[in-house]
Amino acid sequence: MKNFARRAAHVQPSAIRELLRLGADPEVISFGGGYPDPALFPVEELAEIYARLLRPEHAKNLQYTASNGLPELRAQVAARMTADGIDCTADDVLIIQGAQQGLDLTARLLVDPGDVIVTEDPTFLGALIAFAPTEPEYAVVGTDERGIDTDHLSDVLAANPRARLIYTMPEFQNPTGVTLSLERRHRLIELANQHDLIVLEDTPYRALRYEGTSLPTLKSLDTEGRVIHLGSFSKILAPSMRLGWVVAAPAILEKLALLKLAADTQNSTLNMAATSDYLSRYDIDAHLAQARPVYRHKRDLMLSTLAATLPAGVSYTHSEGGLFTWLAFPEGFDAGAFMADTLLPRAKVAYVPGGTFFPITQQPNHARLSFSGIDDDRLVQGITALGNLVTEHLR
Amino acid sequence: MKNFARRAAHVQPSAIRELLRLGADPEVISFGGGYPDPALFPVEELAEIYARLLRPEHAKNLQYTASNGLPELRAQVAARMTADGIDCTADDVLIIQGAQQGLDLTARLLVDPGDVIVTEDPTFLGALIAFAPTEPEYAVVGTDERGIDTDHLSDVLAANPRARLIYTMPEFQNPTGVTLSLERRHRLIELANQHDLIVLEDTPYRALRYEGTSLPTLKSLDTEGRVIHLGSFSKILAPSMRLGWVVAAPAILEKLALLKLAADTQNSTLNMAATSDYLSRYDIDAHLAQARPVYRHKRDLMLSTLAATLPAGVSYTHSEGGLFTWLAFPEGFDAGAFMADTLLPRAKVAYVPGGTFFPITQQPNHARLSFSGIDDDRLVQGITALGNLVTEHLR
Repeated sequence: MKNFARRAAHVQPSAIRELLRLGADPEVISFGGGYPDPALFPVEELAEIYARLLRPEHAKNLQYTASNGLPELRAQVAARMTADGIDCTADDVLIIQGAQQGLDLTARLLVDPGDVIVTEDPTFLGALIAFAPTEPEYAVVGTDERGIDTDHLSDVLAANPRARLIYTMPEFQNPTGVTLSLERRHRLIELANQHDLIVLEDTPYRALRYEGTSLPTLKSLDTEGRVIHLGSFSKILAPSMRLGWVVAAPAILEKLALLKLAADTQNSTLNMAATSDYLSRYDIDAHLAQARPVYRHKRDLMLSTLAATLPAGVSYTHSEGGLFTWLAFPEGFDAGAFMADTLLPRAKVAYVPGGTFFPITQQPNHARLSFSGIDDDRLVQGITALGNLVTEHLR
Repeated sequence: MKNFARRAAHVQPSAIRELLRLGADPEVISFGGGYPDPALFPVEELAEIYARLLRPEHAKNLQYTASNGLPELRAQVAARMTADGIDCTADDVLIIQGAQQGLDLTARLLVDPGDVIVTEDPTFLGALIAFAPTEPEYAVVGTDERGIDTDHLSDVLAANPRARLIYTMPEFQNPTGVTLSLERRHRLIELANQHDLIVLEDTPYRALRYEGTSLPTLKSLDTEGRVIHLGSFSKILAPSMRLGWVVAAPAILEKLALLKLAADTQNSTLNMAATSDYLSRYDIDAHLAQARPVYRHKRDLMLSTLAATLPAGVSYTHSEGGLFTWLAFPEGFDAGAFMADTLLPRAKVAYVPGGTFFPITQQPNHARLSFSGIDDDRLVQGITALGNLVTEHLR
């Protein structure tokens, strides 16, 4: 049979899909998925909402609706964005199938084969998966505890005239957990203006800050309409809604909306109506205020258990929010082989080996650990087993 | 600012999106949308189902799940497909965001810029919208009352060595309503084998047959694993579930699943669980057996009203199922201008002007009318107004 299209060669199995499968085995203590804690889902409120929406007189909730999203939900998202410093209206908001779809649509809008996407190194694996079918090249910029290194970014942009897009997760980055400092946020916008680039700002964990002060979004600092802002209900309400949003300048949003229509017509009317209803009848900020201490506790428990059990020479990040910490093992340590050969068979513990998060040169001596959605006992048991086995392995 | 990617130039506003907006105006009698009748949605059953799924002990229904779809739903779809003559298992099924996503994923898998997609002429507008970002060329084949003309198809394939894909809707085609005959189904598969092509079979209305005998799917006649079969729950359950499926050969399905993961991670777990629950606790075939006479009645009412009110020289198709009839006005009649200048302002009646359904040469003297989801009085009122205004216009 004839070959697939050229772009299909860039579409290969990845760690994420395997992890989604692995997460389904109840025997494995998985620190792999970026799953929110299901104990925090507002199940009873949603039960009430769906019961209200699924009455015969409301059959329209099961019908098609406007492809760019329910108008009331778009207005509610715009109001929340405005309260967060991004001055916008419903017309500036496109509802999408989780922030993941925003990654796909943005790459399709902007990237021709061979164009350069600039990312943090490491970056979100799901973004690399979304970008792959557009056949991009990558230019990468290292991060430290203040996020992406803007001095290095400046050099990288100067060296890459085909750069089209800077992709960044400014808060509690996946996988490293680091947050971009205010000074660097300003500098990043300055550099994007100077080099005429689009910035794709991905903020799935923004509302999950456990300490420190919230910083302005890149979109709120955007002086030339070149930031595409992605948000998501997955971590603040529930992943199953499959709802995210884009805020962008009108010319960009119009094209993204057309690509969205082409890709899947629209999101679920019912899930959009339910989310809109949740936002109007319940207090999502109060819900988040209850969720944060739970995650904070998990993070603290993971970090203290790592401190107690990991040997010298293994470091990990202290994230101010989000779901992750990022481990750096000594040079020469292969986190993938260690998990396959030792950690899984001997302790039934899983993480995400870090190699695949690097767009160009994979560094095998890293792992991403999520602290959410695991009860305390299993968290301590799993991390302790990890610490002991790493200690044994490095001895 | 720099330009968008090359593919973005192929992404333009279309009639469908405007129609979705127009359909929201309650004053307009719209025959435009391909909407199922909301009175047929099993609202009460779904209310029971969501109430059961949204209990605290079932919080997993709000969590992420396997990206290729809930295993139980895939098995149920496979069982239904097998009963319909397509021998398959859950492993051969990928759950997607409505059949529309199958169009997008398939084009991305197979079509490089300049490759040729072969379609019926006219064809489904949503498919043209989905295919556009892959920058295809088109080769088109006329249809008659037995569907796509396979003699013409043979010539077209011989003349188009870059043909990659035959896209077809064998039952109650959108927009014409015609059904491919059994003889031509065999011939189409023969031609695909001979020319080493993929066939994309789109069957959103297959279960909505109001007369005549069901014919085997192209997939069931597929001798070389080259048919990609798309199905949808939108017309048999509710569009708001945003659920469809693909059945395809393993090598193809594997790549489509990777593209799906990249595009939006997964479908809504909750909506998949609800649909699975519906299939196991209720009788969807009994539901369809109740729905068919309703649609049949609407079709008959529309056709008889058209017969009574349209002037000579305007013809329309008699579909054995689905949601549409297709009008052919005399040569020189512009159905778009007529709707904008006369039909909407004078009668508040809308249809879909047919021009945009033609991939290459738009024929402006056509319109698509949907007979579903409109109560009898308004249907007769709208069609009578159409008939009278066309009569006046052509006089």
